[in-house]
Amino acid sequence: MSLAIGVDLGGTNLRSAVVDPHTFALIEHDKERVGEPRDVDSIVERVASAVERHAARSTGPVTVGIGLAAMLKDRRGNVANSPHLRWNEVPFGQLLATRLGSRFAVGVYNDVNAIVWGEAVAGSGRGSRDVLGVYVGTGIGGGIIAGGQLVEGATNCAGEIGHVKVRWDEAALTCACGQRGCVEAYVGGIYVQQRITEELTAGAKSTAIELAGGIANVNPGHVDAAAAGGDEWALGLWGELAPLLAIALGNAVSLLNPERLVLGGGLLGRAPTLYDLVLTSLPLVATKASMDALTVVHATLEDDAGLVGAAALAARGVSLIQ
Amino acid sequence: MSLAIGVDLGGTNLRSAVVDPHTFALIEHDKERVGEPRDVDSIVERVASAVERHAARSTGPVTVGIGLAAMLKDRRGNVANSPHLRWNEVPFGQLLATRLGSRFAVGVYNDVNAIVWGEAVAGSGRGSRDVLGVYVGTGIGGGIIAGGQLVEGATNCAGEIGHVKVRWDEAALTCACGQRGCVEAYVGGIYVQQRITEELTAGAKSTAIELAGGIANVNPGHVDAAAAGGDEWALGLWGELAPLLAIALGNAVSLLNPERLVLGGGLLGRAPTLYDLVLTSLPLVATKASMDALTVVHATLEDDAGLVGAAALAARGVSLIQ
Repeated sequence: MSLAIGVDLGGTNLRSAVVDPHTFALIEHDKERVGEPRDVDSIVERVASAVERHAARSTGPVTVGIGLAAMLKDRRGNVANSPHLRWNEVPFGQLLATRLGSRFAVGVYNDVNAIVWGEAVAGSGRGSRDVLGVYVGTGIGGGIIAGGQLVEGATNCAGEIGHVKVRWDEAALTCACGQRGCVEAYVGGIYVQQRITEELTAGAKSTAIELAGGIANVNPGHVDAAAAGGDEWALGLWGELAPLLAIALGNAVSLLNPERLVLGGGLLGRAPTLYDLVLTSLPLVATKASMDALTVVHATLEDDAGLVGAAALAARGVSLIQ
Repeated sequence: MSLAIGVDLGGTNLRSAVVDPHTFALIEHDKERVGEPRDVDSIVERVASAVERHAARSTGPVTVGIGLAAMLKDRRGNVANSPHLRWNEVPFGQLLATRLGSRFAVGVYNDVNAIVWGEAVAGSGRGSRDVLGVYVGTGIGGGIIAGGQLVEGATNCAGEIGHVKVRWDEAALTCACGQRGCVEAYVGGIYVQQRITEELTAGAKSTAIELAGGIANVNPGHVDAAAAGGDEWALGLWGELAPLLAIALGNAVSLLNPERLVLGGGLLGRAPTLYDLVLTSLPLVATKASMDALTVVHATLEDDAGLVGAAALAARGVSLIQ
């Protein structure tokens, strides 16, 4: 039996853990800041050192799963780009596998895919073979499990629900990805925050300003509370954004017929009114047959989901490099 | 080695064949009209008789795959409804399996899923583990293969790309499914034909009328030829419909990251100008990463795809009832 290690490498933290491959409990757990330098050689060395510390508890084979905040381009851990790590066209997987050596089998996964897999095996998707997970935080990311298998796609970039187009008129907003009308450009946290600040600064009246103690402090949580209290501007904004997210989610549900839709991420977590509005719109979008099969649940594993999911994917043998 | 039999049960024809499970060639092949009566007991008897005739060539075990023009509700061949067969809530799979007996292992699949699987193993998707197949005929149907597995979904109704919503404004058209804004309500062949006739009858000028020899004869093929010749009305109509289909296709491509997008069906087959316009719009919708991985191909197996796919799915052991 291999030792199962999970790594979650984001823009801020490098977390690593030994994970029980049956219960998915964290047996030991480390967390450090990514900091600088963050060129690929330095990060490979940092990840390898963390993995080796954990691996010292046994002498047998080790599987290492890494959830990476990056756009991958294949199942060998080649990274197309990672804004968080400032990487472009980096052979991360091969470098790490070579550095670690033959005792270690390495799998590199998109961070959201790892998170959704974690929820599916040990969180709110447990027991379901067909899961769609969508995280609405600063951006919007997704992961798909179909028939008990992670849907990686031809080049390991499936699940990009944040860049599904929900507007294609002349006025459709431009997304950081360079395309127009992406749902992320409307409902991604960075864009929502920007729009809140802009509209209030431009003179929109809202009780959210008092709730926050000033325009500069208003965040989506305050807007959500204002909407819950009947604030006209807040309800107008949520009333525009909720259907756009529901379109992206509902169309994916029609396509995939999942048993569970796992929703997570900072924005939805802080905005229960928005969340409820999205769920209200969902049956107008998804087919009746797909809605009949669907249960919508909150993500439950929080920060551990990525670690657990990456370790579990690697332990299962998904896309191992060696 | 089991004998592999495929059945394609539509609203018009009942086709059946013995299929070579390695080359997917049709070894023997029958076709009869469905006709009347088409209550489930009569049809079960008809299908069973056809299967038994084919099965007489061996004495060993038989796998039977049936592609059915129906909305399924599970992997046991329970049918939610089939407008073509006028069935509602019918336990087709269990009735057929019981009638055939223990020598026969039966799998019941949605017809478009069977067709896409057929293209994936023996047609234009061959060699790809990640395939999205979309058929634009009288309606619009789809099938998804991810990581070499058919995506059936929790209740076997995945792939419903025809009911993805592409409009949600006040004027969004109502679809036969009862919901509004489905891509099928715009680009499904029945709706396109209806709209052509209505607009020309209402006085729209188009060279399509001369090409067809009168308004009553104008079909999408004539409109396509007119558009190719620069006809303003035809280009206007295609210019509205092509982006809507591209939105549905491109968003699915972003989500699934397929290696091949197989396009088929009567409407796209007769409308090469529309087809080209759809492909032109696709890169504005799908993410760059998913487009980089994608090849768009025409379906090639025509009427045999469903037979071959159903036989191949059953031979593979997908969702067998006994």
